Amino acid sequence: MKLYTSIGPNPHVVRMFMAEAGIEVPEEKVDILKGVNRESGYLSKNPSGQSPCLELDDGSHIAEITAICEYLADRQGGSPLIGSTPEERGETRMWTRRVDLNICEPLANGFRFGEGLKMFQSRIRCIPEASDGLKAIAQDKIAWLDAQMEGRQFLCGDRISLADILLYCFLAFGKTVGQDIAPENGNVTAWFERMKARPTSA
Amino acid sequence: MKLYTSIGPNPHVVRMFMAEAGIEVPEEKVDILKGVNRESGYLSKNPSGQSPCLELDDGSHIAEITAICEYLADRQGGSPLIGSTPEERGETRMWTRRVDLNICEPLANGFRFGEGLKMFQSRIRCIPEASDGLKAIAQDKIAWLDAQMEGRQFLCGDRISLADILLYCFLAFGKTVGQDIAPENGNVTAWFERMKARPTSA
Repeated sequence: MKLYTSIGPNPHVVRMFMAEAGIEVPEEKVDILKGVNRESGYLSKNPSGQSPCLELDDGSHIAEITAICEYLADRQGGSPLIGSTPEERGETRMWTRRVDLNICEPLANGFRFGEGLKMFQSRIRCIPEASDGLKAIAQDKIAWLDAQMEGRQFLCGDRISLADILLYCFLAFGKTVGQDIAPENGNVTAWFERMKARPTSA
Repeated sequence: MKLYTSIGPNPHVVRMFMAEAGIEVPEEKVDILKGVNRESGYLSKNPSGQSPCLELDDGSHIAEITAICEYLADRQGGSPLIGSTPEERGETRMWTRRVDLNICEPLANGFRFGEGLKMFQSRIRCIPEASDGLKAIAQDKIAWLDAQMEGRQFLCGDRISLADILLYCFLAFGKTVGQDIAPENGNVTAWFERMKARPTSA
């Protein structure tokens, strides 16, 4: 196997997941600033042009960060980061999709269509007029999440999961591009600090 | 178990998945037009206020359509609709997330912020100025998908999966709200007709 990776929150998710699960995979860096991921060599591996992408030993590829994490867990017979019962796995996948659609995606697109416009406008259709609204949606959902986190260590209660890793890496990215967690969200802020303190977070 | 369900593309995904997998679950209808899903009774089950939501026998709940489908498959020991090997499951989840983020979500939000604004503006933050751009993104990605579908029966090749069901139900919804598949996308159109012809599609 080989993981094609780069800078950015998406590879960070896979990297932190592997560190939490004790999985190591050889890596090859892709220079996304130079647009190498939009050239034919990379597109033949991942036609969506996004990083990261996992190359399997048979030469096929799995892209999309949550799918890569699930695959790495699956091939070692499962992982507590996904869940140890169907109920736990259901809870993990519920929270993973919630944060993916409600927070990570509007946060990332708020950036791509705003501060990141210069880089992204030649690669994807950008909607600059949606940037502020998308950032506001991400903040709305962080505030919603803050209420849900009352009394919880992690999104799925006492156990850390893929959902926490996904959210952490995107909120850490958000802090670097002007989308910090609003200070009134004390539960999410405390959770973020707990995640940041883990040796796997770097 | 009980499935809280309603009109709309999201419950359609779970209904079609269950029909393909031969799974039956008692249902209770939630009147989303009247906003019952935004009242405290429903919010105590699914605090995101979205339909559908699966109530387990222990009184806990799993929301988010792909998580519900994965759970229903998982508790019966797996399903070919998710995949029979880690590699197949990885491929399914890759395509599921691709269509979820790239087509279903912009298509649905293009509707919510546009034709559906009257219903949604009191429930969630809407960005009317993003509606046209989101619809255009969904169309861009359908065109991208059309090239990927060359020579394929389904998103994962010869086998039907959750990814097809997810995409089919949202494209079927799109047709009813002015977001039809552009006629030049012959591969996606042919795939759509194959999906529509299945006895499970209604």
